[in-house]
Amino acid sequence: MHTLNVALGVRSYPIHIGRGLLDRPDLILPQLRTRKLAVVTNEVVGPLYLERLCAGLRREKLEVVSVILPDGEAHKEWRTLNLIFDMLLRERCERSSTLIALGGGVVGDMGGFAAACYQRGIDFIQVPTTLLAQVDSSVGGKTAINHPLGKNMIGAFHQPRLVLADTETLSTLPAREFSAGLAEVIKYGLIRDAGFFAWLEQNIDALRALEPAALAWAIERSCHAKAEIVAADETEQGERALLNLGHTFGHAIETGLGYGQWLHGEGVAAGAMMAAELSRRLGWLGDEEMARIERLFERAGLPVFGPALGVPRYLELMAHDKKVEAGKLRFVLLRGLGRAVVTSEAATAEVAAAIEARCR
Amino acid sequence: MHTLNVALGVRSYPIHIGRGLLDRPDLILPQLRTRKLAVVTNEVVGPLYLERLCAGLRREKLEVVSVILPDGEAHKEWRTLNLIFDMLLRERCERSSTLIALGGGVVGDMGGFAAACYQRGIDFIQVPTTLLAQVDSSVGGKTAINHPLGKNMIGAFHQPRLVLADTETLSTLPAREFSAGLAEVIKYGLIRDAGFFAWLEQNIDALRALEPAALAWAIERSCHAKAEIVAADETEQGERALLNLGHTFGHAIETGLGYGQWLHGEGVAAGAMMAAELSRRLGWLGDEEMARIERLFERAGLPVFGPALGVPRYLELMAHDKKVEAGKLRFVLLRGLGRAVVTSEAATAEVAAAIEARCR
Repeated sequence: MHTLNVALGVRSYPIHIGRGLLDRPDLILPQLRTRKLAVVTNEVVGPLYLERLCAGLRREKLEVVSVILPDGEAHKEWRTLNLIFDMLLRERCERSSTLIALGGGVVGDMGGFAAACYQRGIDFIQVPTTLLAQVDSSVGGKTAINHPLGKNMIGAFHQPRLVLADTETLSTLPAREFSAGLAEVIKYGLIRDAGFFAWLEQNIDALRALEPAALAWAIERSCHAKAEIVAADETEQGERALLNLGHTFGHAIETGLGYGQWLHGEGVAAGAMMAAELSRRLGWLGDEEMARIERLFERAGLPVFGPALGVPRYLELMAHDKKVEAGKLRFVLLRGLGRAVVTSEAATAEVAAAIEARCR
Repeated sequence: MHTLNVALGVRSYPIHIGRGLLDRPDLILPQLRTRKLAVVTNEVVGPLYLERLCAGLRREKLEVVSVILPDGEAHKEWRTLNLIFDMLLRERCERSSTLIALGGGVVGDMGGFAAACYQRGIDFIQVPTTLLAQVDSSVGGKTAINHPLGKNMIGAFHQPRLVLADTETLSTLPAREFSAGLAEVIKYGLIRDAGFFAWLEQNIDALRALEPAALAWAIERSCHAKAEIVAADETEQGERALLNLGHTFGHAIETGLGYGQWLHGEGVAAGAMMAAELSRRLGWLGDEEMARIERLFERAGLPVFGPALGVPRYLELMAHDKKVEAGKLRFVLLRGLGRAVVTSEAATAEVAAAIEARCR
């Protein structure tokens, strides 16, 4: 087991990464204020891991209640969130109770947002079971639900007390979802670590074969990057925005197609290619670097072109993005491999051309 | 105009109290990060004051959008909240936009909660137009919506940037709602200021006649008490709980009757009488003090007995309260006029007897 720390003063918390952590209630116990726990999971992850997690907790004489949500990004909305509130109230969970989110990014986002709002905020713990959640969404305290007019538009910053990433759970993850998680792993290389990007080029096949040593390194390295960036900028006033590389385009793809058509990581991959293309057009990225990025995403099993929604639709969807400021879109672009910057310099015509070039 | 400060470090903010403040956009301007404002109001307050507020802001070349919510506590729920999100997204409000809540406690609670969640948090300003909102709910950053199983169960702590209390708006307030606001004013006397309680006994008729000097003093004194308590305990870990005198019983009344039957302040008055009765039974409050409290609430036009829901129903509803900890109800009780304490000492039989004595 490896342990990292997210340094946020009184809100600091550990990330444990390792095999078999679902069977380690001793890691959870020190974080609890009372002996009552509510577990939020979904209909895919629940049958696989809920009983195992709960059994361990009950052996420690904890009172555990749970709710099973429908699966998928399309359900990341108020009605599903209300299922959590219904359960918490029905089971008389209190301000001092703790909520555990057991599942992927959608479960973590909704469980975390429910914890942020229930009685104006209760403690929560992330137990991510997908690669995407383990390397990205479970760390950093961003929680949210979607709105028909935009992704993650309604949410809160609410840090977990603990993240428990059991790498064994990845063995039951569909290959498509594993690839989607790799998009965020590759993103860390792109934005701040050319060495890690080169390591990924060497090890992408080992990762897709779930080789434990490669997997552990990729997850730890990703969490480390995320933890550092979050610690420096908890509420995204500055540097944290770099984590959104590919996300402005990617959210437009997800929203434009309807939630659940493309996985989040797939949108990020195609979106990162659009950002790279825009960077190339600004003269910031060479053709060879561009080719390396495309090749790595492809080898990871990810799309490198966005769907043909039409440029006007992309621009319209992006205008709703949270990265808009004073009516101007801010983009995360690349000034080389491993060097992302936030800019609002790109002219709309250039943005349109980049989208057009990376759609089909 | 009087100005108080709520001292919360980087989240500190001023409360301005005075006549005609709706026409003072100059007080709002310094708080804005961009020139875009979204005003949230309701169908009762909107026709009276929305245009006046917006006209002043537009004269300052601000872009103002607005939404008008249905009126009443029964609408303090997710569907109504979504009307705010729909407007914010449709009008392309950004992270740096500011939301103004123009109205009573329900508008403030919903506007504040929408601001807390929209894009994970935008700035907001309270422009309270009821006595209840001016002396209590607009100050302190508590925001929430109701759930069928409990009042204010879903919410956030989100401090406003500014509170603008225009006392002229009270002239259009129905007498019943004015009385409901007086319940919270009397509460400040009860929990920490016997001198203010005595002043209220002298001036209750002047207040109900809306005499400006008495009104200004009562509002300022109340805001001062609230600001001090909130500054000492922003997220209700300790002293702030004293503000909940009468609220555990009062919420049970509101929820038990269905939201909107009794006004919040009416529930607080009857609830405070139950708390006083329980205090008397514990030997903490004398018969004469009890009589003075009852008399003042009556003269303020408030109920001093709760509805006959039956003791078991009261106990059941109270078990859902946020003041429950480790399964035990905590009450705010009185150890004399002007001296409230938080306790979990009261036995259920005593609680039941106090409820029974103060219902009819």
